[in-house]
Formats: sequence, structure tokens, C-alpha cells
Amino acid sequence: MLHRLFCIWLCLVLPLTALRAQSDEDAFFIRKLYDLALSESQCYQWLEGLTQQVGPRLAGSPQSAAAIAYTRAILDTLGTDTSWLQPCRVSNWKRGRPEVVRIARSALGSQTLNALALGRSGSSPEEGLRAEVVEFQQLEELEAYGDALNGKIAFFNRPMDPLQLNTFNAYGSAADQRVYGPARAARHGAVAALVRSLTTRTDDRAHTGVTVFGEEDPVIPALGISTRDADLLSSLLKQGPVEVFVQTHCQTRPPTTSYNVIGEIRGQQYPEEVIVVGGHLDSWDVGQGAHDDGAGCVQSMAVLELLQKAGYKPKRTLRCVLFMDEENGVNGGKAYRDSTISKAWDHLAAIESDRGGFSPRGFTFDGQPEVVTAQAETLRSWLSLLQPYGLNFRKGGSGADVGQLKKLGPLLFGLEPDTQRYFDYHHTRYDRLEAVNPRELKLGAAAMASLVFLLDKYGLD
Amino acid sequence: MLHRLFCIWLCLVLPLTALRAQSDEDAFFIRKLYDLALSESQCYQWLEGLTQQVGPRLAGSPQSAAAIAYTRAILDTLGTDTSWLQPCRVSNWKRGRPEVVRIARSALGSQTLNALALGRSGSSPEEGLRAEVVEFQQLEELEAYGDALNGKIAFFNRPMDPLQLNTFNAYGSAADQRVYGPARAARHGAVAALVRSLTTRTDDRAHTGVTVFGEEDPVIPALGISTRDADLLSSLLKQGPVEVFVQTHCQTRPPTTSYNVIGEIRGQQYPEEVIVVGGHLDSWDVGQGAHDDGAGCVQSMAVLELLQKAGYKPKRTLRCVLFMDEENGVNGGKAYRDSTISKAWDHLAAIESDRGGFSPRGFTFDGQPEVVTAQAETLRSWLSLLQPYGLNFRKGGSGADVGQLKKLGPLLFGLEPDTQRYFDYHHTRYDRLEAVNPRELKLGAAAMASLVFLLDKYGLD
Repeated sequence: MLHRLFCIWLCLVLPLTALRAQSDEDAFFIRKLYDLALSESQCYQWLEGLTQQVGPRLAGSPQSAAAIAYTRAILDTLGTDTSWLQPCRVSNWKRGRPEVVRIARSALGSQTLNALALGRSGSSPEEGLRAEVVEFQQLEELEAYGDALNGKIAFFNRPMDPLQLNTFNAYGSAADQRVYGPARAARHGAVAALVRSLTTRTDDRAHTGVTVFGEEDPVIPALGISTRDADLLSSLLKQGPVEVFVQTHCQTRPPTTSYNVIGEIRGQQYPEEVIVVGGHLDSWDVGQGAHDDGAGCVQSMAVLELLQKAGYKPKRTLRCVLFMDEENGVNGGKAYRDSTISKAWDHLAAIESDRGGFSPRGFTFDGQPEVVTAQAETLRSWLSLLQPYGLNFRKGGSGADVGQLKKLGPLLFGLEPDTQRYFDYHHTRYDRLEAVNPRELKLGAAAMASLVFLLDKYGLD
Repeated sequence: MLHRLFCIWLCLVLPLTALRAQSDEDAFFIRKLYDLALSESQCYQWLEGLTQQVGPRLAGSPQSAAAIAYTRAILDTLGTDTSWLQPCRVSNWKRGRPEVVRIARSALGSQTLNALALGRSGSSPEEGLRAEVVEFQQLEELEAYGDALNGKIAFFNRPMDPLQLNTFNAYGSAADQRVYGPARAARHGAVAALVRSLTTRTDDRAHTGVTVFGEEDPVIPALGISTRDADLLSSLLKQGPVEVFVQTHCQTRPPTTSYNVIGEIRGQQYPEEVIVVGGHLDSWDVGQGAHDDGAGCVQSMAVLELLQKAGYKPKRTLRCVLFMDEENGVNGGKAYRDSTISKAWDHLAAIESDRGGFSPRGFTFDGQPEVVTAQAETLRSWLSLLQPYGLNFRKGGSGADVGQLKKLGPLLFGLEPDTQRYFDYHHTRYDRLEAVNPRELKLGAAAMASLVFLLDKYGLD
């Protein structure tokens, strides 16, 4: 009887003990990754190189080529078995000489506005253009206004909703104006478009970003103007007609070939199963692309660095992918997806960091509905290891690049940092190295490395 | 039978329904506080006034008097029943003309260092002093070195531990050098002391802060030097003797009278029970005291503002206390404690915000052991209302000012923002308005208002 009781006791206790031991071992390893990130990681120095030596990296630019060489050379030092450049056709838009936007006639006289031409937008006549401004809050109002817009400048002025706690939700609800507004205005005869910058702040910073024209659409000049200037313009319009002068020198040249940069550590047990970590290597041509998305690139490289420094030999293949031309069409992400299909790569999971190098608060996760449902319990079981670092999981979009893989079945993640400051810098001249705090950057890298470790060690159900 | 079953059903379901309705009502009200904070709160404008119009507010300075008048006038607009100035004796230290620290002789020649005299430190001879430098990592090493320190300059160079996730823990483990190092060195005959600035960054920013001399100690010059300069000095010391020139013009004058600023809304049901929210109004004399602690002051005032805008009539008395002279002796906090004893004020709880205006992540709580044990369950029951805003409770110190009340029994809280950036700015010339993000500041105010609402509505067990 004693023997039998002992057996029952063993059956009950041993698995718990084993589980506890395993959990302790995992906790120690994750702590090691954090210690290495905070003490030895080179990721902030890499960001210095990417932002200050290479500079802004618009797809198709000489700097984007320099960034490719710079990051590949680093990846080759991180214990990778192989690295390669994956070709992709990328947009090839150029701002040209600085844009000029000036209130030319209004109740208060003339004034120059803080403006940045939007990606893929068109050029004004060489001497500039001048036209009356019409303000819109919703894109739908364009249809009601109709062809009365002919020869005028459309001004999209719906503010980002300050009540959204997550600023990305506010961005998502306001970005239609920038992405689709100019083309829709052009279809009604508008000669140019101005868009209120996408930030909740009231300041003088102009924010750029992509705008999309269809093949049939006239490619008109389109510019982001600062929120303070948007408020000014709107208040002047309430007092009477306003004419604005616009001069841009943008050029959209034929697509060119560029590359995603890939470094890979082959798995020792399941080499055919791939876990991707990545960010996008291109940036806008103003500022330095520090938060967007130099941070995500160096954090992704740091995942390999930290696992290497910790002496970890992955079971599965770990691949760091630095995507090209996310900003002007997600062209690197699409090329990676096409290769995934043609080469039948089997992705277990993919993690993107493209929400800035701020203090990490967790991960969003996404995927096909059945994948998300099947894996929710596994993620929950990892929470006790990640919550001590302030990390949680939340259902939500992953990232524009790895999001291209969604239909192919992997579980997708997006690093989710604190969102309050991101739109202070996003797509502006102010997205520079000094806006990134080294510890916040490194904590994000450690968070990603910890998730990669768990994904690699335990796989998914 | 049916009737009896129905009764049982009612007994089971009604309390749950009532609980749910109450919880929904609380959730809506907290959401309203956040909406008001993000849309209507004036707290960032008040911080503009405090940092840019008033400027730095060293206790005893004319600016500290201006800050008292400025904030009291605001409190009088926030639905307070009364406001008053509570006298307190405060330190009266003055930096005088800018300090000079220069490497005068070393293997690499001479070089000026980034330095700031520490609060309460002494003056050098008018023409400055020059002496050999001795480096220490731990205060205990001083005793072993003994009187060989006579006529020399002690240099305390233990870095803040970068591996601590919470930077305040790292600060707490390194601050003994600044607070006690200079006095202990003086007892061994040192003529001056240099202290490595308390930050994990390697940069050129000198950090000041209080240092404490006993009545018998020689009050020598003591200065914080930037971490980069501390590294340089340390590396030069490895190559041979180093002499440093130090010139300071600090004056410690007799204590003077200043004031805590207090605004109060009397409770409608339990007016004798007081809930305090506060920060400290004084700051160092460099920078603008934006994070430390202009942020905490305007957030505390915003608690009254938000509850007023939400139309909330408190059951208990809400008191906003802006404490004077936290930096150079917690003198306002001690005066408030003395009044609490002499007037037999009954504090239910007190919340301090003095860790910067960064994204809030929760509250630390503290108090007498039996109070903390008794209230832990109540706090846990509020978590479901606060976690949607990223807030948690953690056992830990509250704040230097409200901490003075600990022995008197109230439950004490400290707003806990993300800690990663705080020591980039703390006690430096860079603690300026532009380092504070308006949304992060407002979210902290909303978090404090939400906790005050729950404390006021439900009390404590």
C-alpha cells in the first residue's frame, strides 16, 4: 500500500517538479538574454551606424544600397550559417528639391507652411501652382463636392482621435486621407492635395508617408502639412477664400531592383521549420529613419546576437530578414512572400518590429483564424515567463512585411512598444538617433529574443 | 417549489448583476476620466507655465515663491473649497557662479569636465583648489585608505547597475556615493569630492542632487561629473597620478520660510477622511524641473480638475499638496507630517507622483505592514478596472514626501511610470518641458484620478 501511495505521489509530483525545473531553466535563460541585451548588445551602435553613417534610406536610393551592405556585414558576424540578398523590384520615387507651400492669399495675408511632399506624389509645374483651397473632413465629402473641385486644392484635415489610448488605432482611422485622399481628389480635377499631418500633437512638424495613385489617376502634388499649419489654414478658410501656392519637384522613376537582406542560423533538429525576425531597412528620405525602422532592424539582428552570446543552438532555423521598401509599397515583404511560395519555405512563426524602439509592452499576434485559436493556449502558458518583463500578448496585426505571410499559415507577431511617442517622430525630420533611448531599444531586442527562444524550444501545437 | 427556486435564483443572480452594474458604472467613469485627460486637461499648459514662465524652482529662491503663487492661483479654479499655504522651514543653498572642474595634470594633459556642484556642498577657495585624485568604488574603501586622503580629491565612480530593469533600483544602489560620499571623504581630510553622475547612459550630462554633511563635517566642494568624464578620469588614473582643479561658489545660508501649497475639496459624506495627491514644487536650479517634479505637481492638480470636469462630488476630502524643498531635505514633507500630527488629520491614503511624466504603468503601494496586508485584497479587486489602461499595483516605496506619513497609518501610493528614460534627465540641465510628452503626462494624471475615485468611492477595509 505504501508502495502504491508512493507511486501515486510520484505520478502527481514528478511532472510538476519537472515542469517547475523546466520553467526555472527557461526563466534563467530569459534573464540571461535580458542581461546580455543590457550589458553587451551592440544594437544601439548598429543604429548609430545606420542612422548617422548611412543616413535616411529611401528605397532605390544610394543610401539604401549602403544600408544593405552595412547590415549584411553585421549579420555575417552573428553566427549565421549563411546570408544572402533577396532581389525585389522597388519603387523609385524621389523628392527632388525641397517643396514649398505658401498661403498666397487669405484674410491674414501670406505665410509659408511646414510641408513635406508625400511618397509617390507628383510634381507641380516648374514655376509652381496657385489655387483655391477646399477643406474636407471625410473622403466621402469629395463625392458630394464633385467636379466643383476642378482646378482647386483639396485639403484633408480630419485630426487623429486623441481619445484612442493606442495611437496606432488613431493613426489607422485617419490614414485614409493621406493614402487615398490625393488620388480621389485628382479624379475630381484637384490640382494638388494637402493632408493634415498624422500626429495627435499640435506642432510645426510635417509628416510624410505614402499616397497611392491608380494607373488612371492624374499624379498630382500631395503634401503633408504640420498640424499647427492645418489649424491655421482651417481657421483662415472660415474667414473667406484662401489661395495656396504649391511647388514640388517629385519624380517617380521606373521601379528598380533592390534587396531584402537575410541572415540565417540553420536549425539543428528541424532545419526545415523557419522562424523569422525582421524589420524594414528602408526609411523616408527625411530624418534618419531611427524609430522607423532602424530600431526594428537592429533589434532583429540583436536577436541573433543575443542567442549567440548566450550559447544557444536553435532547433529550428532562425532567419533575420531586413525588408526593403516597406514605405512605398511593401515591395520587399511581397518579394519574400513570393519566394516563400516558390521555394515552399515552411514558416512556424514570424515576428516584426516596426512600431519604434520604445519600451516594450508585449506582442500582438495574428494569423489564420484556426492558427490563432490553436496557439492561444501555448502563448498563455508562456505569460508567466514574460510578464516579469512587462510583456503581454494581444490579438492584433503583426507588421506590414511579415503580414504578407498570413495566408500561408505561420503565427505572426508584432513587437508592441509603448505607443505614446511614436507619432511625435513618425515620417518626420525628427526621427533621428537621439529620439531613441538605448535601454528601451535593447529591452525590445531582449523581448524578441525571449519569444524566439520559446518558439524555437517548444514549437507550436 | 417554483417560487423557492426563483428566490434562490434571485439570491444568486441579483448580487452578481448588481456587482456587474456597479463595475460597469465604474469602468464608464474611469473611461470618462481618461477621455477628459486626453481631450480637455490643462495640465500640460500648466507645466509650460511652471517650466518656461516660472523656470527652475530651488527651495528658497525667488522662482520657488513665483511657483507657489502660480500653482495656488490654478488650484483656486479647480472647484476647491479652500486653499492655503502651509509654512515650512527650507534649506537655502545657492550654487553661485558656475562651477569649474578641470583635469590640471595627467598623462593626457588638461581638459575641462562637465560638472555640477551638488546641493548643500561647499565652496572652494575663491581662486579654486588643485589636488590629486583618488578613485573609490565603494564607500567602505575610504576607511581602508584612511588619512592618506588628506589634501586630496575623492572620486566616487561606481556606475549604476545597467542590469536592473527598474532604473530606480539601480539609482537606489548607487546614490550612497553622492549622498554620503563627500562628507565621509571630508572626515578623512579630502578637500573636494567628485561623484560619477547617476545615469546608465554614457554621455556628457552632469547630474546634481543632494549631498549631506553632518554638523561636524567640513563642508567641502562636491560635484557630479558626467559619466563620459568619469570614464576618462578613471582611465587616466590607471596611467598615473591625476590632479584636478576645482572651483565652486556655493553658499549655504540659514534656513528660510517657504510653503507647501494646498488645495482641498471637502468630502460630502466623510469630510474628516483625507485623501492626498501630491508632487514636489521645488526643483534643482538647472534645467526647468519638468519631469522632476513639475510633472507630478500638474498631474496632482489635474486629479482635482478631472474629477471636477466629470462632475464628481467626493465623499471624502481630497487634498492636493504641492510640497516644497523635497530636493534638499524633504522639508515640506516633514512639515506636512508635523501638521498632520498636531491637527490630528486622518489620512485614508496619499499618492505621490515623483518619478517623471512618462507613460504610467501602475502604482507602488506602501504603509505599515498591517495596513498593506489588510488592503491588498481591495487593490486586487480594482485591478480589472485599471489593467485595461496598462496599470498594475506593486508593493514598493511611495514617494519621499507622502512617505513621511507612513508611521501615521495611511495607505501610500507612488505613481509608477515607465522608468527607462528618467535618469537621462534627472537633476540635469536637460530636464526641460520638451522632454515631457503631453499624452504620457495626461495618462499619468488620469491614472491618479482613477485611483483617487476608487479610494473615495469605496474607501478601504
